[in-house]
Amino acid sequence: MNIVLLSGGSGKRLWPLSNDIRSKQFIKIFKSEDGTYESMVQRVYRQIKKADADANITIATSKTQVSTIHNQLGDQVGISVEPCRRDTFPAIALAAAYLADVRGIDPKEPVVICPVDPYVEDEYFASLKALSLQAKKGEANLVLMGIEPTYPSEKYGYIIPRNSGNISPVDTFKEKPDVTTAKDYISRGALWNGGVFAFRLNYLLKKAHELMDFTDYEDLYAKYHTLTKISFDYAVVEKEKSIQVMRFAGQWKDLGTWNTLTEAMEEHVIGKGILNDTCRGVHIINEMDVPVLAMGLHDVIISASPEGILVSDKEQSSYIKPYVDGIEQQIMFAEKSWGSFRVIDVENGSMTIKVTLNAGHCMNYHSHRNRDEVWVVVSGNGQTIVDGMKQSVKSGDVITMTAGCRHTVIAETELKLIEVQLGSEISVHDKQKYQLEY
Amino acid sequence: MNIVLLSGGSGKRLWPLSNDIRSKQFIKIFKSEDGTYESMVQRVYRQIKKADADANITIATSKTQVSTIHNQLGDQVGISVEPCRRDTFPAIALAAAYLADVRGIDPKEPVVICPVDPYVEDEYFASLKALSLQAKKGEANLVLMGIEPTYPSEKYGYIIPRNSGNISPVDTFKEKPDVTTAKDYISRGALWNGGVFAFRLNYLLKKAHELMDFTDYEDLYAKYHTLTKISFDYAVVEKEKSIQVMRFAGQWKDLGTWNTLTEAMEEHVIGKGILNDTCRGVHIINEMDVPVLAMGLHDVIISASPEGILVSDKEQSSYIKPYVDGIEQQIMFAEKSWGSFRVIDVENGSMTIKVTLNAGHCMNYHSHRNRDEVWVVVSGNGQTIVDGMKQSVKSGDVITMTAGCRHTVIAETELKLIEVQLGSEISVHDKQKYQLEY
Repeated sequence: MNIVLLSGGSGKRLWPLSNDIRSKQFIKIFKSEDGTYESMVQRVYRQIKKADADANITIATSKTQVSTIHNQLGDQVGISVEPCRRDTFPAIALAAAYLADVRGIDPKEPVVICPVDPYVEDEYFASLKALSLQAKKGEANLVLMGIEPTYPSEKYGYIIPRNSGNISPVDTFKEKPDVTTAKDYISRGALWNGGVFAFRLNYLLKKAHELMDFTDYEDLYAKYHTLTKISFDYAVVEKEKSIQVMRFAGQWKDLGTWNTLTEAMEEHVIGKGILNDTCRGVHIINEMDVPVLAMGLHDVIISASPEGILVSDKEQSSYIKPYVDGIEQQIMFAEKSWGSFRVIDVENGSMTIKVTLNAGHCMNYHSHRNRDEVWVVVSGNGQTIVDGMKQSVKSGDVITMTAGCRHTVIAETELKLIEVQLGSEISVHDKQKYQLEY
Repeated sequence: MNIVLLSGGSGKRLWPLSNDIRSKQFIKIFKSEDGTYESMVQRVYRQIKKADADANITIATSKTQVSTIHNQLGDQVGISVEPCRRDTFPAIALAAAYLADVRGIDPKEPVVICPVDPYVEDEYFASLKALSLQAKKGEANLVLMGIEPTYPSEKYGYIIPRNSGNISPVDTFKEKPDVTTAKDYISRGALWNGGVFAFRLNYLLKKAHELMDFTDYEDLYAKYHTLTKISFDYAVVEKEKSIQVMRFAGQWKDLGTWNTLTEAMEEHVIGKGILNDTCRGVHIINEMDVPVLAMGLHDVIISASPEGILVSDKEQSSYIKPYVDGIEQQIMFAEKSWGSFRVIDVENGSMTIKVTLNAGHCMNYHSHRNRDEVWVVVSGNGQTIVDGMKQSVKSGDVITMTAGCRHTVIAETELKLIEVQLGSEISVHDKQKYQLEY
């Protein structure tokens, strides 16, 4: 099975764990079979591999997520990198060109497109395989998954099938309705549109060439920023006559809010947290080093991260976005291709961060125009390169770098350091990258 | 008026703002007339000075609070330092000896004893003056303040006066009762015992010499650790026949729990915090640099500090102590005589703290046996002394100190530095102090 997972952009609905650079699908919140915590993307990836060990998985995403995806899924996963965000049709077209031109997939092969963040059981992935096989038959140009509704939701679009068979031609699509209309749809046999569909690769490439002027993957990639933003639904689905829908009746959840997310959590407390015996329906997700103590609360979510602290009634938590939009807070934590960093002190004229490099990794060789830096290695071993000079470093070593000086650190073991940045204009944009000189 | 304020020990009922080394009376939580925040002790001190500009104020407290008291009240305030905790009778006796022998107060003068943390209006301090004048008259050996009860509290002891006059002999004292008994006491004209009383200095000195073998203040101070722990109530009040009570009918609150404390707060949010429009009766007290967002909560207190995060139903907050006792958390923040420090990172084999020195102050000249240290100055100017070598330092300067090396920093302006401690056994007890060698 060829599967493309669409990994969406930044989101604030799960603040303070998600933010402008960390999307909800990367939050490690689900207890996996071996007792460690995994993210939505790790869970889905593991489930696909379990359903189909030979699955060819490609993640379609933006540049900003590539480091995190490699950190969480390893270096083997295929990634179709969108140079910028251009909505779902260009993203799927780019992924299709990537599969054909980079990965050499036979254009007659079927491809399944699926969001990266459904919370589902293993049967869902068996159903994706069935969807792929149905697309391969070529009875229709597109085969959609229709999820049997469990309540008249206003959050989803609806698919109305022509008949009640497991596979049926699609009669019509309906936008997100109000509850009354949703009840009416459901009485007519409507299914939720969960954004999952399959097609043969050559079908999508043909559509792409019809709507966009490009020769191959490289050309499409180069032109990507010039493309018009357009959704796959609008560009393809609404105009296509030959569409089938396949029913899926198993568990399917969209974990977009704290309320739905905590329903899927096995434990009430992740991280340091204490619930007293008068708490009911309280969840704590705490990424800080200090404890959270909750007393006498009912149906409340508490989440603390280096970005901030949320305490919300679970129902209310779905209205979080405008409040978070109003918070001006610099990025306090980020995963990078080489590890991660966390801001631990902000002062007028200085910023102190804790940097963790994974064993075998190094940050870019770079310099800053407007700030000096001091590194104090606090654990691990590695090598620093400063203006071309290579030096072994270990816990306790201090490296001072003036503005303009080129520098990097290469971790032999996992290596942690405290970096003090000093200057009147400290900005993440003040960075020039260089090729390593050794 | 001579007034001794009893500044009690550490408390965990206002965790995470109070802890083993920061008592509730030092939390800056009340908006003062100039718009800045002041602590209980600052508020009371200001109110006393307003009621009696010539008041001779002494704070009876333990060694651990001396730095904070000087930071909050200045260097002029009198402090009677208890070398160790020995309950209220030895503490009051030591303060009395301090007033007589160190401050030269005439033994015929009256002294008022009062807790440092009542939340009261200015009329209370006028009442303390009246209490002092009544004690001076010598009609009784002890004059207590009796607070007119506003409800049948189980939290206070009761004083039953002989008559309903403003000043009356005391008939009897009652321990903390249950609600029914409290109602009965109140129907008999009982008053709350708020721990406020006055006597002539020579009365107390006589009592002290009767019960303890000492010559003068210095001798008592030297013997303090050998004294028996005994309360003033048990040692003096219960045995004294000649006691009057003076009524006080004004506002009086004991702010011992989050519930009562938030009732006294003028604002719902101190620090970075957002309440959405469905919050009712919610208070946020946030000492962290990142925001707290509260949504859809009712009658909840949220408090965040470098020690931890509390989210509690207000009623439940009075049951906090056993939960906080169960938390093992190193001290993350402390005020010192020279400024303050905050732990910003803890790693196996290292700890990073941010140190703020007040202008004109310096830390002790000291060394550590088991850890190296690195200082990075991030703001201000000063001088470091390292193994006797004096050096001017400014923002950006780096000082490395190996274990055993003697060091201090003297702040010319306010000076902030990041200190990275490195070693396998990092402990606050690993410190040898020296006389400065310059």
